[in-house]
Amino acid sequence: MKVLVIGANGNVGRHIVDKLQESQHEPVAMVRDSDQIPAFESKGVKTVLGNLENGFESAFYGVEAVIFAAGSGPDTGADKTILVDQEGAIKAVDHAKHYGVQRFIMLSSMAADRPQIGPGGMRHYLYAKHRADEYLKASGLNYTILRPGGLTDEPGSGKVELAAHLKEFGQISREDAAEALVYLLSVPRAENKSFDVLQGTQPLQEFLAH
Amino acid sequence: MKVLVIGANGNVGRHIVDKLQESQHEPVAMVRDSDQIPAFESKGVKTVLGNLENGFESAFYGVEAVIFAAGSGPDTGADKTILVDQEGAIKAVDHAKHYGVQRFIMLSSMAADRPQIGPGGMRHYLYAKHRADEYLKASGLNYTILRPGGLTDEPGSGKVELAAHLKEFGQISREDAAEALVYLLSVPRAENKSFDVLQGTQPLQEFLAH
Repeated sequence: MKVLVIGANGNVGRHIVDKLQESQHEPVAMVRDSDQIPAFESKGVKTVLGNLENGFESAFYGVEAVIFAAGSGPDTGADKTILVDQEGAIKAVDHAKHYGVQRFIMLSSMAADRPQIGPGGMRHYLYAKHRADEYLKASGLNYTILRPGGLTDEPGSGKVELAAHLKEFGQISREDAAEALVYLLSVPRAENKSFDVLQGTQPLQEFLAH
Repeated sequence: MKVLVIGANGNVGRHIVDKLQESQHEPVAMVRDSDQIPAFESKGVKTVLGNLENGFESAFYGVEAVIFAAGSGPDTGADKTILVDQEGAIKAVDHAKHYGVQRFIMLSSMAADRPQIGPGGMRHYLYAKHRADEYLKASGLNYTILRPGGLTDEPGSGKVELAAHLKEFGQISREDAAEALVYLLSVPRAENKSFDVLQGTQPLQEFLAH
């Protein structure tokens, strides 16, 4: 599938692009700045420029699936949480609908389905993610929402714990989260569902297989 | 009508409570801190304690209408814009539905229906208001959304310009905005509609009268 990766230059996004290439998909890396292009093109990855706060609609042309993995990150204010994490995602859903995209995979966050229980400093972020997730669910798009625990830079293990709801909070490597996003793209049992995911003991491919 | 005023202690909220009393409605002032109670009770206004970030569901018991006029204000961060202006309003809509409230009047902001054209520093705020307004519109509640221009502390004039969309941005006194909110509460032609409002030249009561 031709898959638009929104937030391709981010710490999860770069893994997503690699995993898509390994899985015989055709990633299209959406990046904000032109100086981010060469790193992708040197790997043979097509890129498209797009800015979540301004225009990025044309990036959706000809795309079969979208993985939204953008985030404003911890170094900007909560105004960017609204403009990027929430409204950028909502605009992406609108554009995907407009262009008839078949699958929309959302990188969310554990506890985004119940923001009120999140820690105080995280709560506004979880609400913003929650709004975007709810908007996707109501959109009519064929979606999967993945809510990883705390993201680490550990190398991928390929072993996870994945379920509609996991009781305990925990961590997962960015590489494993990326692999899960790419895996869920093509798993019929994941369609129109949401999942928590953490580092675990079972191979990813054993989940939702039958 | 028994009208719950959310944000009653705010700069618009206090005018709303006064206008409700003058209009023979029965205001219930929802305030956050108990030291805000005496100022209302000395005027014979019933109060109820409620915090938009925590619990305030019980405030809706027995209420016929709600006017949402709360805002986190310019002195807090954009995290509060999410938690109060957006999510507080969304929770209020949920509670109003749960308690069978008949009318929900939302104090929004001019340009909240098209946040992308707002000035850069305002845009995240306009998106947060937009999300709350859209949530109310989709809720099934009988709503009216009022979008005033820049709010001033001038005394009320009773003269406004009110329409579904006004072309030019402008100002309006908080007292006139409050009077408009209370007026729209009981105007059948305002039901399930949204309006811009600015200071103007026509008496408020001439709008939507027939």
